[in-house]
Amino acid sequence: MVLAETELSTIDDVDAHANVDEVLAAPVPDGVWISRFEAADLHERADAVDPGLPLAGMTFAVKDNIDVAGLPTTAGCADFAYRPERNAPVVQRLVDAGAIVIGKTNLDQFATGLTGARSPYGAPESVFGGGLISGGSSSGSAVAVANGSVHFSLGTDTAGSGRVPAALNGIIGIKPTRGLLSTLGVVPACRSLDCVSIFAREPSLADRVMRAARGFVPEDPWSRRAPGEARQIRRPRIGVAEGLDFFGDSGQEKAYARFAGDVTVDAGPLLEAGDLLYRGPWVAERLADLGEFLATHPESVLPVTRRVLETGLGYTAADAFRGRHRLQELRAAADRMWERIDVLVLPTIGTTFTHTEIAGDPIGRNLILGRYTQFANLLDMAAVTVPNGFTADGRPASLTLFGPAFSDDMLMTQARSLYETAADGAGMTIAVVGLHLSGEPRNGELLERGGTLLGATRTAPLYRMYELPSGAPGLVRVGAGGAAVEIELWRLPAATVGGLLAGIPAPLSLGRLVLEDGAEVTGFLCEAYAVGGARDITASGGWRNHRTKGSDS
Amino acid sequence: MVLAETELSTIDDVDAHANVDEVLAAPVPDGVWISRFEAADLHERADAVDPGLPLAGMTFAVKDNIDVAGLPTTAGCADFAYRPERNAPVVQRLVDAGAIVIGKTNLDQFATGLTGARSPYGAPESVFGGGLISGGSSSGSAVAVANGSVHFSLGTDTAGSGRVPAALNGIIGIKPTRGLLSTLGVVPACRSLDCVSIFAREPSLADRVMRAARGFVPEDPWSRRAPGEARQIRRPRIGVAEGLDFFGDSGQEKAYARFAGDVTVDAGPLLEAGDLLYRGPWVAERLADLGEFLATHPESVLPVTRRVLETGLGYTAADAFRGRHRLQELRAAADRMWERIDVLVLPTIGTTFTHTEIAGDPIGRNLILGRYTQFANLLDMAAVTVPNGFTADGRPASLTLFGPAFSDDMLMTQARSLYETAADGAGMTIAVVGLHLSGEPRNGELLERGGTLLGATRTAPLYRMYELPSGAPGLVRVGAGGAAVEIELWRLPAATVGGLLAGIPAPLSLGRLVLEDGAEVTGFLCEAYAVGGARDITASGGWRNHRTKGSDS
Repeated sequence: MVLAETELSTIDDVDAHANVDEVLAAPVPDGVWISRFEAADLHERADAVDPGLPLAGMTFAVKDNIDVAGLPTTAGCADFAYRPERNAPVVQRLVDAGAIVIGKTNLDQFATGLTGARSPYGAPESVFGGGLISGGSSSGSAVAVANGSVHFSLGTDTAGSGRVPAALNGIIGIKPTRGLLSTLGVVPACRSLDCVSIFAREPSLADRVMRAARGFVPEDPWSRRAPGEARQIRRPRIGVAEGLDFFGDSGQEKAYARFAGDVTVDAGPLLEAGDLLYRGPWVAERLADLGEFLATHPESVLPVTRRVLETGLGYTAADAFRGRHRLQELRAAADRMWERIDVLVLPTIGTTFTHTEIAGDPIGRNLILGRYTQFANLLDMAAVTVPNGFTADGRPASLTLFGPAFSDDMLMTQARSLYETAADGAGMTIAVVGLHLSGEPRNGELLERGGTLLGATRTAPLYRMYELPSGAPGLVRVGAGGAAVEIELWRLPAATVGGLLAGIPAPLSLGRLVLEDGAEVTGFLCEAYAVGGARDITASGGWRNHRTKGSDS
Repeated sequence: MVLAETELSTIDDVDAHANVDEVLAAPVPDGVWISRFEAADLHERADAVDPGLPLAGMTFAVKDNIDVAGLPTTAGCADFAYRPERNAPVVQRLVDAGAIVIGKTNLDQFATGLTGARSPYGAPESVFGGGLISGGSSSGSAVAVANGSVHFSLGTDTAGSGRVPAALNGIIGIKPTRGLLSTLGVVPACRSLDCVSIFAREPSLADRVMRAARGFVPEDPWSRRAPGEARQIRRPRIGVAEGLDFFGDSGQEKAYARFAGDVTVDAGPLLEAGDLLYRGPWVAERLADLGEFLATHPESVLPVTRRVLETGLGYTAADAFRGRHRLQELRAAADRMWERIDVLVLPTIGTTFTHTEIAGDPIGRNLILGRYTQFANLLDMAAVTVPNGFTADGRPASLTLFGPAFSDDMLMTQARSLYETAADGAGMTIAVVGLHLSGEPRNGELLERGGTLLGATRTAPLYRMYELPSGAPGLVRVGAGGAAVEIELWRLPAATVGGLLAGIPAPLSLGRLVLEDGAEVTGFLCEAYAVGGARDITASGGWRNHRTKGSDS
């Protein structure tokens, strides 16, 4: 699995034309876009941008169940497509803030699914590759942001569609409080639960987009006004849950365990609420709007989507009300939880899947993906998804922060702090030279601690590299007669470095290395006593070269 | 139709034993009570009352779908009955405030209906008699208050059950904001809409009861906390509606027309929302709880109730969600209305019915009764029902004040002011002597102006009474040689007296009369010029005696 840091182009916020050119020049991966504006059209839009606006010149993608004037809205179903006359109000607000819509992105058909594998327009892969699904339903919007094509994008979120693909692509996903961003001009999935969501690579831009996108829309009956005074909490009480099911994925389990909360809460009522969505009467809410199309165009709908939607036919109105009543009890349980904590932090997904795995059980594995997301909208929560490093085998891990309705700003502050801690706030740079390099057997020890690859570099020409009799590599500083050796720099949460050190056997140690630019960092060294019978492999340039190309010793 | 003022005993708030004796001695009209505590039990409860409590010694009745420990809860269905171990929290709060539960009152079975004619325990008559229905479903609770048996009572209200019987019995009915009074320990009708309601004869007691009864109950998932700061409005904008359907009842139409608002609003969206309840998917909400009993005990349920409940079987879950979506649009319309007005005033009922009329069309006429009540709970409104005088033919008229959720206190202030205006605030006392007396042909002119009978009295011994050649009566002040004549005193809204005067033909006039206690009031006089050929009927004592017993002239 490829683990290189996503190479993000440093596109400029305000040079709208340069940004448009950047998008046009970027590769277009399979299954990410459904339609895009022509180059001339985009440059015309770039011309019109007032550089003083808050999102001036920033490019964005729109999930193809949200209206953008000039492009069809397909909702992932060609026979359903229509040409909207106007931008959805939420799109218009972003355009009014100076942003440029590039085009419409792929999605699980009718936003029904969390896999990114339920579209006739292709099944995008996670930017981390390895056959990993992109997640859905906002598959294209998440990938277009994660691969650097656009600055940000809009998705939608009913059961987790704005969070699951953020998790699988290592980006920020905001699932706002219901009604804070208007859903007018959005193809309904479950009208009472649908939210427009935001993807960005880092929290501060996500927050800027959020501030531009939200606002009461009088024509939208689901639009809500945020209460006057925002909830300001100096030191929020953070809740975590115990005993969660990771479906056998110890990598995701360890990633979640790295996060320490203040209070342990029972996630049971939340999970039961979530079950009402796909395994209860709320699946019938999708039929309230789509039922007629489904009945008249059965062949236009993907078999898996049809299967899901048709389960809604089995529920009576009394079932729906019974579900509503149970939900009320679970909402009361959630309210009691909010008396004990301010923020709940859960893994966004319990495990990841490849496209092959999803194909093997498209409905069962979809439910697994939604386990820790699908209760939020039913329980009127706000949520923000934040990357949380990687598993030892290189799959992305992710946390979602939840708060009660209208806690969006407070959540964002917490998300930013969590992101900074995870990314570099209390981080420590470690130089690795041998078995901890990317793709080498012990690289997982870095990943499972939330390590991030900063890049490859070389030491100052002061070292010699050995293959010890045990087969392990060893870097020894020799001074005169030394050479520059290829190494990698990793960033680790400082708190996890002790654990890494504890696992290092003699004769290895963590000490200070000098880099080729003269900087000193902590890194792996070998005690000189151990190289007596060892093989000098310095001429190969570094451990990876030695392993792949061999060495003449 | 009997029109005498309801003879209310002046039961003492704090003498609990005297109050209990009063209740025990009072007549027990047919169909009002389902069960009551024994005398010894009530006196034991009276013993326990702390006289310092806010409702110390006040007696109350509880609708028989609300749990009272020691009495069965029947919900109007013997086979459904169970014996609760505890008082419903709302009952307990009133007991804790010093009030004494007398017993359980009749209701439309399962609180399904607005007529008071759907119970195996009898069909109470309105306190105004004439075969008029009591209204329902809280039939017994309304009558027990209106006939003075108890100080106050609890009902429930899903579609108007706390307002329609208040209207038909000339009392105050509070339909609080949903969740402000706990519905724990209440047999559910539509859980998401059910409210516990309050009946009292005048607003200040209703308000005292409301303050004691309300409060957040953590175990009740439907319980809601009122927002911190109450909405205080110095001069609320009052809305009224035009073009309402009074179903041919010009008396009720005139009664409503007496009320002048500030702003005219469109009631269309409210009425459409109301239709969702009995003519839309919400009828299926009743099956969420009652469906199983109905299926297993079809013969235990009244045919009319069964017919209503079974219409709920025809709705799918998708229908329920479609209804929810339409409701959201109508809620948005109501929200826009609340931007223009603070209080909406509508007739509580468009017309009244007798038991015979209800028997002729029990379902259709029930819908008519709910026309101006049944939207309130769906649209999350608070409501207070206030008497509004009478129609010309002596039937009670009533207004309901609506406000948005949690406007209860503001509404109560307005209700009190409306009640006082109607009762005596800007009222004027008029002495009537002939054709305007109760039961006489022109009495309706007083009633339709919102007139209230203050009582019968006599003039000072200064008058002579004549039957004019036209057959009309005439009272002439003669001084020496005069006698005391029987008259009635009525209270009329001052604004309506001009209209009354305009309709009086010569030789009658409105002038100043001296009462037997020496007080002077405005009243009907006859010019002396007209009594030349008239018959002196003074010896009969007054016009009514003359008419019923004849006079020897």
